[in-house]
Amino acid sequence: MTHTSDPIEFHRRLRGKITIGSKVPLEAENLSIVYTPGVGAVSTAIADDPAKVRELTGVQNTVAIVTDGTAVLGLGDIGPAAALPVMEGKAAIFSEFADINAVPICLDTTDTDAIVDTVRYLAPSFGGINLEDISAPRCFEIERRLTEALDIPVFHDDQHGTAIVVLAGLINALAVTGKGADVRIAISGAGAAGLAIAHLLVAYGMTRIRISDSKGVLTLTRENINASQREVLALSTAGDDWPLGETLIDGADVFIGVSKAGLFTAGDIRGMATDPIVFALANPVPEIMPDEARAGGAAVVATGRSDFPNQINNALVFPGLFRGLLDHGVPQVTTAIKITVAEALAALVDDPCPECIVPSIFDPRIVPGIARAIGAAEGERC
Amino acid sequence: MTHTSDPIEFHRRLRGKITIGSKVPLEAENLSIVYTPGVGAVSTAIADDPAKVRELTGVQNTVAIVTDGTAVLGLGDIGPAAALPVMEGKAAIFSEFADINAVPICLDTTDTDAIVDTVRYLAPSFGGINLEDISAPRCFEIERRLTEALDIPVFHDDQHGTAIVVLAGLINALAVTGKGADVRIAISGAGAAGLAIAHLLVAYGMTRIRISDSKGVLTLTRENINASQREVLALSTAGDDWPLGETLIDGADVFIGVSKAGLFTAGDIRGMATDPIVFALANPVPEIMPDEARAGGAAVVATGRSDFPNQINNALVFPGLFRGLLDHGVPQVTTAIKITVAEALAALVDDPCPECIVPSIFDPRIVPGIARAIGAAEGERC
Repeated sequence: MTHTSDPIEFHRRLRGKITIGSKVPLEAENLSIVYTPGVGAVSTAIADDPAKVRELTGVQNTVAIVTDGTAVLGLGDIGPAAALPVMEGKAAIFSEFADINAVPICLDTTDTDAIVDTVRYLAPSFGGINLEDISAPRCFEIERRLTEALDIPVFHDDQHGTAIVVLAGLINALAVTGKGADVRIAISGAGAAGLAIAHLLVAYGMTRIRISDSKGVLTLTRENINASQREVLALSTAGDDWPLGETLIDGADVFIGVSKAGLFTAGDIRGMATDPIVFALANPVPEIMPDEARAGGAAVVATGRSDFPNQINNALVFPGLFRGLLDHGVPQVTTAIKITVAEALAALVDDPCPECIVPSIFDPRIVPGIARAIGAAEGERC
Repeated sequence: MTHTSDPIEFHRRLRGKITIGSKVPLEAENLSIVYTPGVGAVSTAIADDPAKVRELTGVQNTVAIVTDGTAVLGLGDIGPAAALPVMEGKAAIFSEFADINAVPICLDTTDTDAIVDTVRYLAPSFGGINLEDISAPRCFEIERRLTEALDIPVFHDDQHGTAIVVLAGLINALAVTGKGADVRIAISGAGAAGLAIAHLLVAYGMTRIRISDSKGVLTLTRENINASQREVLALSTAGDDWPLGETLIDGADVFIGVSKAGLFTAGDIRGMATDPIVFALANPVPEIMPDEARAGGAAVVATGRSDFPNQINNALVFPGLFRGLLDHGVPQVTTAIKITVAEALAALVDDPCPECIVPSIFDPRIVPGIARAIGAAEGERC
């Protein structure tokens, strides 16, 4: 295939980014084992003992990437067909980074009940469910109901993948700046990612969190806040000792943006605490560009982009996470597992520095490191 | 991998028969095209013009193999997990024989409405739906409703794949025996396969068909016949000129069994017309063994087994059929297409003989030959 850096042309030549192949060549002898009549004995063995499906098929190495196309990248509700290239790309990453079979499933419905039922019904072919790019607040209910209904892990990557990478990066950023868990944290964005980040940081002991959405700072008395936002606010201890300033980030030690381009200036960063940490994760254009954040005094700057240092990228987490979940038969992604994964990822940076708070996504230690950490944690739990 | 001919051990070592891979290595440059940020332009292009999904993704080379596990091989209702090895085997065949990405989808529901809705919802990721091993009569309604609802081909292989191979074999068997379309045909088995065979033979002009199920010969006045069986009976012209004998096959030119082992003896075959044609397709043990059928005077004998000549195997059809449907964007598998495929398959046998009425499934001309025939037929239609 001829090289091209034009994404449309690249995709047109490729006509699909993943390929499904047979593990064995199908000459006559293999064919009669892989298919009828030989496969009958295998089906019978599973019918007799359903647990054997994990030994005798690929189910325990297969993940469904399920979306309804309502919150794709920064593009929003573009529908299931337009979401497919993203899901194919994710499936390619699952394969290349973690040897996992991942199947794009783009759903032609946005109805919560219909999505839950569909995923429940198709679950027997899969060892895990990666929910992707489903808009809030429906994504919260869909994930909760599927987690309750299924005995395989269900993981909404836009929430928890982002939250885990942010926590990993923050662990190292705090080490670099000499700050502790009592940092004041301002989060811009109160959708799936922002709320999941807040939940995970609180669980890790960082409770001084203030969150805003496009209408301003969330408070329990404000109108138009949803149940998920209310729940997070109830856990926050950002109170009288951190008075509201002119901007969300006034007085904050940490800014985490999962919102939109160009929210803040260097001047705004100057209003933060000393040695501020800035995670400006809006894609493709961050809430503040790294050079401007540094001009305002930021000690550590991270973005979602590959062309700057400290890329907070979900691909740092989901391949290794699912590798660990599948290998160790973990039925549910608990908060403890999320913290385990964040700590394992942070620990892969030998000597954290302002421009190296997370490893490169091409670091080959990531997937086995995360998977091993999950195995160890599950071993302790048992 | 060490060789073994024990199916259980073979499957245990393999742990899944298919693998999903990335078409391109994911170093830094590719990753930013395959995934964010580059893929955003591709999603936007599809959101602007949904038809572009066929050019820019693999959807037009991807088939879902959907089952509820209610009618698997000769094993019956063994459930979705036990069906998975069969669907994986089928996916391996799709890949090896036709370079098609096929995804096993084993559903944890047997409810007709739920199956229809689930397949409708997951359809955007697929260019075709292969329904598999769903019991009658639900399979008829499921296929009909999905065909109406979707603009991609929906094909229940147990019905139509079987029917197409039977018609192909019968075309050559009639040539070998010098018989014509006025043959008297006895079909044992009035489920999905038997009724689909009857429908296709009638459409091909062979209307003198008598069908039996486990309770005996179907008649319009018999109790306990379902709507699908009644429909087929109304098309049949097996009347006064072919009186009912002691067995179903008395006086028949052709016997087609899709029922169960050991139904007939050599003596029963002697009661058929001269130079009878016997398709004993029950698996793994046919309605009558080939040597016994020949002892009774059968001129042509076919089975479903690979260890006898004339294997009537769905794998002769589904890879090439879907290759043709996908390549030519055919939205629906009409009766005309089924006949086109049967004729194309029959024509691949250069010189039909009693032991060579269908090609070997390893004949490399089959998939391109069938796909080309579909393209030519569609071209004429347009």
